Amino acid sequence: MIKKYKPFSQSSRSAAANRPSVRSAVQSSGQPASRPSARPVGQPAAQSAGRGGRMQPRQPLKTNRRFISSQPKVERGLAQDNKLKIIFLGGLEEIGRNMTIFEYEEDIIIVDMGLQFPEEDMPGIDYIIPNTAYLENKINKIRGVIITHGHYDHIGAIPHLMGKLGNPPIYTGALTAGIINRRQTEFKEAPKLNIVKIVNGSKMKMGRNFEVEFCRVTHSIPDSFAPAISTPAGLIFYTGDFKFDHSPINDEPADLNRIASIGGRGVLALISDSTGADSPGYQISESKVGEDLNQMFERAPGRIIIGTFASLLSRVQQIITISEKFGRKVFPQGRSISQNIEIAQELGYFKMAKGTLINENEFRRLPRSKVTVICTGAQGEKNAALQRIASGEHRFVSILPDDMIIFSSSVVPGNERSVQALKDNLYRQGGMVFHYDLMDIHAGGHAKQEDLKLMIRLLKPKYFIPNHGHHYMLRVHGELAKGVGVDPNNVLIADNGQEIEFLKTAGGTMGRLGKDKAITDYVMVDGMGVGDVSNIVLRDRRVMSEDGMIVVIATIDSRTGEPIGNPDIISRGFVYMKENKRLIENTRMKVKNIVKAHDARTPADDDHIKNKIRNDIGQFLFTKTKRRPMVLPVVIKV
Amino acid sequence: MIKKYKPFSQSSRSAAANRPSVRSAVQSSGQPASRPSARPVGQPAAQSAGRGGRMQPRQPLKTNRRFISSQPKVERGLAQDNKLKIIFLGGLEEIGRNMTIFEYEEDIIIVDMGLQFPEEDMPGIDYIIPNTAYLENKINKIRGVIITHGHYDHIGAIPHLMGKLGNPPIYTGALTAGIINRRQTEFKEAPKLNIVKIVNGSKMKMGRNFEVEFCRVTHSIPDSFAPAISTPAGLIFYTGDFKFDHSPINDEPADLNRIASIGGRGVLALISDSTGADSPGYQISESKVGEDLNQMFERAPGRIIIGTFASLLSRVQQIITISEKFGRKVFPQGRSISQNIEIAQELGYFKMAKGTLINENEFRRLPRSKVTVICTGAQGEKNAALQRIASGEHRFVSILPDDMIIFSSSVVPGNERSVQALKDNLYRQGGMVFHYDLMDIHAGGHAKQEDLKLMIRLLKPKYFIPNHGHHYMLRVHGELAKGVGVDPNNVLIADNGQEIEFLKTAGGTMGRLGKDKAITDYVMVDGMGVGDVSNIVLRDRRVMSEDGMIVVIATIDSRTGEPIGNPDIISRGFVYMKENKRLIENTRMKVKNIVKAHDARTPADDDHIKNKIRNDIGQFLFTKTKRRPMVLPVVIKV
Repeated sequence: MIKKYKPFSQSSRSAAANRPSVRSAVQSSGQPASRPSARPVGQPAAQSAGRGGRMQPRQPLKTNRRFISSQPKVERGLAQDNKLKIIFLGGLEEIGRNMTIFEYEEDIIIVDMGLQFPEEDMPGIDYIIPNTAYLENKINKIRGVIITHGHYDHIGAIPHLMGKLGNPPIYTGALTAGIINRRQTEFKEAPKLNIVKIVNGSKMKMGRNFEVEFCRVTHSIPDSFAPAISTPAGLIFYTGDFKFDHSPINDEPADLNRIASIGGRGVLALISDSTGADSPGYQISESKVGEDLNQMFERAPGRIIIGTFASLLSRVQQIITISEKFGRKVFPQGRSISQNIEIAQELGYFKMAKGTLINENEFRRLPRSKVTVICTGAQGEKNAALQRIASGEHRFVSILPDDMIIFSSSVVPGNERSVQALKDNLYRQGGMVFHYDLMDIHAGGHAKQEDLKLMIRLLKPKYFIPNHGHHYMLRVHGELAKGVGVDPNNVLIADNGQEIEFLKTAGGTMGRLGKDKAITDYVMVDGMGVGDVSNIVLRDRRVMSEDGMIVVIATIDSRTGEPIGNPDIISRGFVYMKENKRLIENTRMKVKNIVKAHDARTPADDDHIKNKIRNDIGQFLFTKTKRRPMVLPVVIKV
Repeated sequence: MIKKYKPFSQSSRSAAANRPSVRSAVQSSGQPASRPSARPVGQPAAQSAGRGGRMQPRQPLKTNRRFISSQPKVERGLAQDNKLKIIFLGGLEEIGRNMTIFEYEEDIIIVDMGLQFPEEDMPGIDYIIPNTAYLENKINKIRGVIITHGHYDHIGAIPHLMGKLGNPPIYTGALTAGIINRRQTEFKEAPKLNIVKIVNGSKMKMGRNFEVEFCRVTHSIPDSFAPAISTPAGLIFYTGDFKFDHSPINDEPADLNRIASIGGRGVLALISDSTGADSPGYQISESKVGEDLNQMFERAPGRIIIGTFASLLSRVQQIITISEKFGRKVFPQGRSISQNIEIAQELGYFKMAKGTLINENEFRRLPRSKVTVICTGAQGEKNAALQRIASGEHRFVSILPDDMIIFSSSVVPGNERSVQALKDNLYRQGGMVFHYDLMDIHAGGHAKQEDLKLMIRLLKPKYFIPNHGHHYMLRVHGELAKGVGVDPNNVLIADNGQEIEFLKTAGGTMGRLGKDKAITDYVMVDGMGVGDVSNIVLRDRRVMSEDGMIVVIATIDSRTGEPIGNPDIISRGFVYMKENKRLIENTRMKVKNIVKAHDARTPADDDHIKNKIRNDIGQFLFTKTKRRPMVLPVVIKV
């Protein structure tokens, strides 16, 4: 079926030799190689950007002759007329926060709108959403939002962003629509969405310049689609998260024929999922996981308790099917898993007999050997069902020695220690614990190296843009592409925000990394605040978490400038005050002496005293304890 | 060589059938099954314990007839006369903090004295050391401290504890002694140590009841020894960290003959390393790692930069040897790695030609293809050499595209994200990056399942005590032991602090888990403070790191009870005050109203006002922001 295709690198190289390079071709027609506003990659954006600020005003660089000589009018003509811009607002430097912009003349379409879970140095942050500063003045150009599938790293920013972006129509599968709509209800101020449901093969015109054909792919959740985007510059294929699974569970396999036929039409660029680029071999089929689960079910004398992700709907379906086969009823525990089962069932995505799902009463009545519990919390999340079961705090699910506990998801990096502690607790409760490594979430849902090569070979793209992963994954994926024949010059590895341009030239469409960079500073969601937690706030949290803080309150008689009484000291997270009376007393005396040494009658002097307290007391405490608490001086004049 | 030995479970089971069980045998001679002071496993110790407090006073439980009937005199006679107690002060619920006590009559010996790196919920803590409250009144019984090898999880607490414990002699290998002495110099107040150097086969009498024979084992650092401890109750073999490596690098292989011959003498209990208990198969030899390194050296055109652990001295030796073979000089970067190389070289543990190690000047002069840089920081540690190289901040080591960067250590759980970021940065610097998974630290240095079984078969212990690992690893290791013939009743899986007792009875020595539990609460080291960071301090740090804090200062006229001016508000890590003026203003007004609503003329009322501010303002801010900052009310009367 799959023909080995002739690498095009050779022909594209020889073509290049016969004409000016991309850059000089553009320059000769008045287009500067980099736009006047260019900011070097990695340079921090303006401070306001983190809170939804705008891009830097575009001013020509005075020192660069090329920029001065460029004619704005000509530039606009060219740039607007035949340039496709692709900008990733997230997803190129992390796993998460996926959002990609396609812009051509007066049309913009968006693919995905996901969230990213916070890094370790962002304490208290719920999650991060893409920064849409770039779109601020272009909202009336947005023709639609394509959502590839229903995972939070692809849909999670929808409630926060759709209102700001003029609530354009969303194009996605029915299951994804169900999950998006359910989440939307949790946000009071989010607008009602206009969702257009698509199926495999749907074609949608979006604006004057884009036409999108949807192509079924397989992932760990049903209803995953890869958009093939026709643009005046050429055809762009965007895989979304995918794997090849020729026997998926309760889902159609990826539409290889459609993908191959699109490949036959000539693909300008392939944008492909890099999550598994570092893993050799082929991804295993979900059916294989089923075989192994089967064997475990055969051996289980008591209850089976399976921890997994609520979003791994294909896995959940498997567990239900196998439970039915073994005469077990299924008891879901955890809000998100129950909700997802409900949505999938309502929309007809789940195959199960009536009565398979049971409630608490039935659970209590049934013999232990007749029950499977599916629950959240396999990552050691606090308060999740499995955690409560492990700690013996679950209201009614407990563990006996013949119960079998199965972890059916791999450990997400960063969660190793919590999973460790969870396993310890489960062992202490007495059950048999199996961490089944083959059933893993990220590898499980994503193409590995051989699959990735197959996708490239099917589509034979001229350009290759690795997506969805940390920088080093993109690099590894880029090497794979070169290995199966993509011209090394045509592997475009960008950073978040960096413009990728495709220009029509006499010799065909040419792609390159642009010099412009949209703002992609983190927009952090913390409680009700979106983008209001700045780096200053985070820095303070980190400082206080390391060494705590100390408040020093000096009350001063405003007429005499003399201290009234002894300064008050409050310490939190630094030392336990009751056990460090001498240290606290010495600190108090030092503060008093600082106040006495100043003439504190003028307000200007307050700052002086405060700085002196901050520095001297900070230094004093460091000498005594080798800790650096945040010192907060308060001067009160009465 | 290795004979399959007959499982003893059957004989020991039939023997048990013919006589009273351990517990009743003991009870019949007046020994209570659990001592009067028994505290249930897992019950928190007295609050003072965390800061070096003492054990609970031993009082008979009035409600238990058995305890009342026991005769203290008889009990003491029995307990003192023929009971071996083994207590792990750490190492049974974590990897780290290894310290084991052996107590028989008036003698105590200690094996290892390690530190543990902090968990994620202990911000700001440097490390944790074992709690020695149990030893407080028994210092004059301590006959010696055996240190198995020179890693920090086995030696790290020495500077903090030896002074407190009367500075008993330390028995250890010469290299370990060198590392211990070097570290001791960093602690001004720590005593000069009395170290007795031992070699393979050394026998040491310690007190009247213990004789220890040292048995060479292999680990990732030379000079690792397993003590075989002869006690009146029987022989205990303590593996320490070990693997079997028949071709180790610059180290003797484990002394299998000695181990087997000790096995022939009859081993009462084997205490064995569980770190690799979850990994199937055999541990690979360090020589195999060398072969792979060789291949990489052959391919490297430019500099080779290898990140590893300073403590992996066998790996460091390998890298030096291979560098010499390829005509490369070695440039160590990072204080700990340079120090360790220096110690190993001084003591003759390293084989290398003169001139192999180079300094900065030579490094600058030599062609790139003639240099290997060995550096710390492969775990993404901040400020470590590799991190500075990756971020382009190293003073003179930079990366060019033909340089090869090799990670020669596995990722320690919890460090995945930092390593990820480190790799991204190295790729951005342009080098070729290899994360060589076979060269991993924990698996690398520790026996895997088949090796662990070999150790059990060589020693044929009556009892098996898995050590060094999280609870679930101990459980898995226990299952392995059962699988190779240890009586399931004789696998003793304890918690930290839990006494394991071996009693001589008419039918031989019988072991069991005791009910007594020594205090093992964390003793945290933070800067200069040891054990002074309490759970309250840590809780405060966590609260402030999540949602920050807000200080509310109300100044009150003590005569009228009325507020003076407007309350002052300081917020840190909560919201950025400049951007939340309205919220801050509303908070101020609420505070003012609270003060006005009270008659604040009596000191008793201060607490009332403070509580009201804490609760009402906390609730108000949560409603407005869904965040829960720590609210610190300050009332100042003037």
